[in-house]
Amino acid sequence: MAQPSTVSPATLLKDELDIVIPTIRNLDFLEMWRPFFQPYHLIIVQDGDPSKTIKVPPGFDYELYNRNDINRILGPKSSCISFKDSACRCFGYMVSKKKYIYTIDDDCFVAKDPTGKDINALEQHIKNLLSPSTPFFFNTLYDPYRDGADFVRGYPFSLREGVPTAVSHGLWLNIPDYDAPTQLVKPLERNSRYVDAIMTIPKGTLFPMCGMNLAFNRELIGPAMYFGLMGDGQPIGRYDDMWAGWCTKVICDHLGLGVKTGLPYIWHSKASNPFVNLKKEYKGIYWQEELIPFFQSVTLPKDCTTVQQCYIEISKQVKAKLSKVDDYFNKLADAMVTWIEAWDELNPSGAKPAELSKVASK
Amino acid sequence: MAQPSTVSPATLLKDELDIVIPTIRNLDFLEMWRPFFQPYHLIIVQDGDPSKTIKVPPGFDYELYNRNDINRILGPKSSCISFKDSACRCFGYMVSKKKYIYTIDDDCFVAKDPTGKDINALEQHIKNLLSPSTPFFFNTLYDPYRDGADFVRGYPFSLREGVPTAVSHGLWLNIPDYDAPTQLVKPLERNSRYVDAIMTIPKGTLFPMCGMNLAFNRELIGPAMYFGLMGDGQPIGRYDDMWAGWCTKVICDHLGLGVKTGLPYIWHSKASNPFVNLKKEYKGIYWQEELIPFFQSVTLPKDCTTVQQCYIEISKQVKAKLSKVDDYFNKLADAMVTWIEAWDELNPSGAKPAELSKVASK
Repeated sequence: MAQPSTVSPATLLKDELDIVIPTIRNLDFLEMWRPFFQPYHLIIVQDGDPSKTIKVPPGFDYELYNRNDINRILGPKSSCISFKDSACRCFGYMVSKKKYIYTIDDDCFVAKDPTGKDINALEQHIKNLLSPSTPFFFNTLYDPYRDGADFVRGYPFSLREGVPTAVSHGLWLNIPDYDAPTQLVKPLERNSRYVDAIMTIPKGTLFPMCGMNLAFNRELIGPAMYFGLMGDGQPIGRYDDMWAGWCTKVICDHLGLGVKTGLPYIWHSKASNPFVNLKKEYKGIYWQEELIPFFQSVTLPKDCTTVQQCYIEISKQVKAKLSKVDDYFNKLADAMVTWIEAWDELNPSGAKPAELSKVASK
Repeated sequence: MAQPSTVSPATLLKDELDIVIPTIRNLDFLEMWRPFFQPYHLIIVQDGDPSKTIKVPPGFDYELYNRNDINRILGPKSSCISFKDSACRCFGYMVSKKKYIYTIDDDCFVAKDPTGKDINALEQHIKNLLSPSTPFFFNTLYDPYRDGADFVRGYPFSLREGVPTAVSHGLWLNIPDYDAPTQLVKPLERNSRYVDAIMTIPKGTLFPMCGMNLAFNRELIGPAMYFGLMGDGQPIGRYDDMWAGWCTKVICDHLGLGVKTGLPYIWHSKASNPFVNLKKEYKGIYWQEELIPFFQSVTLPKDCTTVQQCYIEISKQVKAKLSKVDDYFNKLADAMVTWIEAWDELNPSGAKPAELSKVASK
């Protein structure tokens, strides 16, 4: 491996990482994750009826927020947090005080690698976040910082130090993350291909970021991880993580940060209802045909040097260029501003420039 | 899998593909490839002393060209074909009359997949070339056209048809394709990681193309596959495939063609001498620090609609912008023009625009 990944992550970052889980049910799924998650602090964001009690298995260290808590903490700014949609999870990113976030859905279980061993997804995410990314040139042997890998012949030496990794996007065995039309057409398709790779998504390339199994460096990119307005009272759902992914990737590209995808896998246990999904998605399916070109052409001015500045700039461009697609984007652009205001309120030091130098590439 | 890959490639393209092998020795390595290569026609480009006889195992259908043949066929234009360097292989691309080329080094053997089965590298390359590429947006489950895979949620539907694939870049188990400094630092490193993935290299991203295990659609991209001036009388070696890769990727991006990398693996049997390699490479190692930014910023005018036009345009930009790096690039720019002249002479119909429409994505 290239030098930087000499990281030994046994319960590494224990005091620097929060696990954020949005849920509407008892968190029995945590039993399976106990060996890996128990050392960490959980932030549970309860969606839906706040009078319902969510049971958390004993022995976990957690804080739980329901809608009443969100309203109390954010006051009028709570309007930017979605209700009846897992997009509410981003409230957890905001109240965390840690440097790193791992977020996982409550229908995701521990997957096994091809040798039959349980995959410690969190450990792999941490490895990904602690080793650099290589967004400026493609390495054909994938992540050059892994054991047994390196940069191949022809890779410029000046780029081998890499850049700090802001995001680690993990994948899913069993039920793949398909849209409703694909679910309907291929109800029986399961993902059984274990691809033993991690790679950097190149600069200038957008990707569909799924929030099911996702880790990021909150100090570096946190304020961009807004999951938008979805669910109750909104014309769209299931684009929360996509929206965050487009904004995040554009900002990472601008600030010289890396986004990795690939390992680790989790086991996604059950497909959501494709008919319900179609209803949530159908506007997104045609809107995205305009949203993607928009994000592909977004340019951020050089004087945007913090994530917040970049994000506010994107909100302006959303208002200017996407409100013609639907009035919803006016509302969303306003919510993006509210989100940043709320973020900075809860994270007073968060307004300072992202501390790039702290994420060592060594 | 998404629709387009319903391809049954059992000795598919038998009459449409040539295997090009540059060599200085007897081709005993073909014995191992017999089950896979025997149905195909071979073009052997003999490097070095033309009086030496290269033995080819019986039963193979081949034509062989040595330096005398190259000089006779190309006359003064033979100056564009390298001598004493495997870059001479591109002569084989030029004299082929087939639509597809597979090129492989004579120290590459049949690799085994994780189940222990021999990998039919050629068959996988053909599958790659016959299914579309997706350069405009990243698919997190890799090639969406493979069995058991598809486009994930959030992938724009308008981009799911893909674009024609021009290049299939295969990888190597055992000896990885490292530069001399990395070879020297890690003499014992072996690549044992079988990554079960094929992916499109996104538009706008350059990669280090290795010529060891490479297939391409000659009709779509052939004239860009010039391996430059290397070896005898030249100040540089081991950058032949890199040069071809940079030019090819820039032209593919301009013309809307795809480049895939990943499977298939071959077994690379022996590391070349790192001290010899260092001598060949050292100029390239510092030149590439200027060459990569050059290729990253190359833009081709809209009226360049054929590979030849694109290539000539790049040669002009090489002369204008890289001759300050070294006078070698003046010579190389001239050789690029000679190469295109020779290509068009040997391929009279090749001067016509690449027939994009013939490479069906259906």
